[in-house]
Amino acid sequence: MSDGAEDIDALAELGQLLTRLPGIGPRSAARLSHYVLETEPSYAGALGQALSQLHTQVQRCSLCRNYCARSPCRICRDPRRCRSQLCVVARPAAVDAIERSGTYRGHYFVLHGLLSPLDGRGPDTLPLSALLERCRELEVEEVILATPLSVEGEATALWLTEALSDCGGRLTRIASGLPHGSDLEFADQWTMSRALEGRRRLD
Amino acid sequence: MSDGAEDIDALAELGQLLTRLPGIGPRSAARLSHYVLETEPSYAGALGQALSQLHTQVQRCSLCRNYCARSPCRICRDPRRCRSQLCVVARPAAVDAIERSGTYRGHYFVLHGLLSPLDGRGPDTLPLSALLERCRELEVEEVILATPLSVEGEATALWLTEALSDCGGRLTRIASGLPHGSDLEFADQWTMSRALEGRRRLD
Repeated sequence: MSDGAEDIDALAELGQLLTRLPGIGPRSAARLSHYVLETEPSYAGALGQALSQLHTQVQRCSLCRNYCARSPCRICRDPRRCRSQLCVVARPAAVDAIERSGTYRGHYFVLHGLLSPLDGRGPDTLPLSALLERCRELEVEEVILATPLSVEGEATALWLTEALSDCGGRLTRIASGLPHGSDLEFADQWTMSRALEGRRRLD
Repeated sequence: MSDGAEDIDALAELGQLLTRLPGIGPRSAARLSHYVLETEPSYAGALGQALSQLHTQVQRCSLCRNYCARSPCRICRDPRRCRSQLCVVARPAAVDAIERSGTYRGHYFVLHGLLSPLDGRGPDTLPLSALLERCRELEVEEVILATPLSVEGEATALWLTEALSDCGGRLTRIASGLPHGSDLEFADQWTMSRALEGRRRLD
């Protein structure tokens, strides 16, 4: 990294590739590269092979569009999952988060994106017809819009509310409020507003 | 990641390999894997190949032990570098940091480690004889101990002060004090003590 052109090829090339990853800057890239060099070569080989083969060994489920090795994925194939609920998320990682909560037994649909007009991502970039078809297949009674609570996630939920109006089921949105275990003192004003607006009767 | 055994092979394997990297937990690993899947396959291929080839394309310089494509490295081969100064660092990343400062024109020696008795890293894990030989080759007038200002880095500098007593040059330690641009208000007590102890006369 500190060397002239002829010396930097392999390390610099790896560094440039690593900095394309989200959250990895030049110094993180150097730290990761150096770690790999200090570790036994078989690790670098295994990691390299896993990355090279990733696109051929992972596909999108034809029903929910989540990543899987064999389509349809395990969740879509599972007869014990409740067919009356469909949860719409932006990213595969959201499916993992919801599954970890252990409180949902319905099906999923992964958008792989959100509306973002400033980045040129309009409604035509979202798989609306596939989502509508999935709603009909499942004969859903409820579609839970679980896109992020961000500006783009809210805009997408708003647009989906309109676009899914004839999906056959009612539309719901996940709750916004204070995170579990958090103190009001440290809540930002938007979260605090949401928590108040979404208050529930206890008696 | 949310799927059963037959579905998770490739993504789970990559995730497990990525979490061995420093600073990468399970969620970061999932985020990186998903990013690679959302990006064109040629990127995964290039990154995979760069990692697989890293150990064969990068070696340690026979003189300073820094990473390079051809030994001796560019700095060790450079006749314009000052031979009377040798800067001893723990990691290759420290060489990069010192070179970025643009204030040092001497040579380097990379230990690739520090003393850490609790982790079983004693003096025999450090390349002392190679360091002494390098001091003699260069006929050094000064050896700058630039190990970290951490407990382990200080212990290593202290041990090197003794071990290099007959290296032929004087031994110095990089300064400890308040970082450039920082406010006293936010300094921890140890940094503040060091800054006071290391004060210099201005008149």
